[in-house]
Amino acid sequence: EVIARAAADMFETGALQGKRVVITAGPTREALDPVRYISNHSSGKMGYALAEAAAAAGAQTTVISGPVNLPAPERVSVVPVTSARDMLEACEQALPECDIFIACAAVADYRPADVQTQKIKKGPDEVHLALVKNPDIVAAVAASDHPVFTVGFAAETQQVIEYARGKLERKGLDMIVANDVSDQGIGFNSEENEVTVLWADGEIALPRAGKSTVAAGIIAQIALRLSP
Amino acid sequence: EVIARAAADMFETGALQGKRVVITAGPTREALDPVRYISNHSSGKMGYALAEAAAAAGAQTTVISGPVNLPAPERVSVVPVTSARDMLEACEQALPECDIFIACAAVADYRPADVQTQKIKKGPDEVHLALVKNPDIVAAVAASDHPVFTVGFAAETQQVIEYARGKLERKGLDMIVANDVSDQGIGFNSEENEVTVLWADGEIALPRAGKSTVAAGIIAQIALRLSP
Repeated sequence: EVIARAAADMFETGALQGKRVVITAGPTREALDPVRYISNHSSGKMGYALAEAAAAAGAQTTVISGPVNLPAPERVSVVPVTSARDMLEACEQALPECDIFIACAAVADYRPADVQTQKIKKGPDEVHLALVKNPDIVAAVAASDHPVFTVGFAAETQQVIEYARGKLERKGLDMIVANDVSDQGIGFNSEENEVTVLWADGEIALPRAGKSTVAAGIIAQIALRLSP
Repeated sequence: EVIARAAADMFETGALQGKRVVITAGPTREALDPVRYISNHSSGKMGYALAEAAAAAGAQTTVISGPVNLPAPERVSVVPVTSARDMLEACEQALPECDIFIACAAVADYRPADVQTQKIKKGPDEVHLALVKNPDIVAAVAASDHPVFTVGFAAETQQVIEYARGKLERKGLDMIVANDVSDQGIGFNSEENEVTVLWADGEIALPRAGKSTVAAGIIAQIALRLSP
């Protein structure tokens, strides 16, 4: 009830009026060769819902989006990218013009060490694929010289809150949104979500709801923490 | 012109009336853990276009489809699957009720040797992923006891015709459709295609056209080879 009122207030007052919000969304795709890639089940729905909520709260909003099948929300600029390195580059370019950065994309942790220029032919029964770590986009943003309010996401399948708080501290984030993707009804590719928003000295659980309602709740929490 | 006339004849006469056609379409996804997978850029458009053309020629048509964003064509049953092993199982189940099998799906050649039940945590800078070979669906169908007219696809980036003819012979197929996916204007995820149809003692190049026109041309060639 308090949350709902706070959320309503945010949108009545245009709580993010004059703020510039950059949101990453969707999966990244890491090429193995011209036709194959490694990716994940992120649909981009949560990131796009956050973009809609940010725009509704008055923010100038940009989504840096991996490959998804979603229309661009109204009043939101969409910058399409493919790989984690593409996404980092787009974020770095956007950063000087950004007050709030929300890293909602499910960025691939690893990419193939070598990208083949020709389609790899079927060969032996077993092969070993060398993978190297991708850049950590949200940590890079949090550590940059630009004073940006940085929000991460932690999609986990176990010990969700514990992992999320560790990530908040380790990466120097201002806020993190934790959700349990082992629950089929929420998270990746579903219509609903149920998250806990954590910051240095507090946390709040947002009840299960449609992704646009959850997004509005997260945007409200960001506005509250920005100007306590 | 001759091709166009042959194609038109096929559809006027319901050339596949009474035939049961099973078509695989789209990519497969091979899980690494609950959220990550290996896949490829197949959109499923060619397979779905073939299903429409087969249904238009009078065939009872089933598509066994990997994850795509396409509506089910009219008068076509769609069986959704995810991995190559799922797809093989669905094909084996469909085979006793099948006269013509068209393997249009871009089946992953390899899958992760181990599927983790929990999301893999980011760890060392470099990791090695063990991959094992997936079943060869079209070869399994061609080698089965059911007398099915079997059509394969060869999506290649180099020496396309040469590879395709090798595949036709090695896998014991009745026909193979070769296309050059290194050309960005055709093949994976594009609206057009340009293919060469090969069989034991002949081949025919179908000119670049929309995927539904190319699909009709392929279905016409199948009908011609079935009943010469």
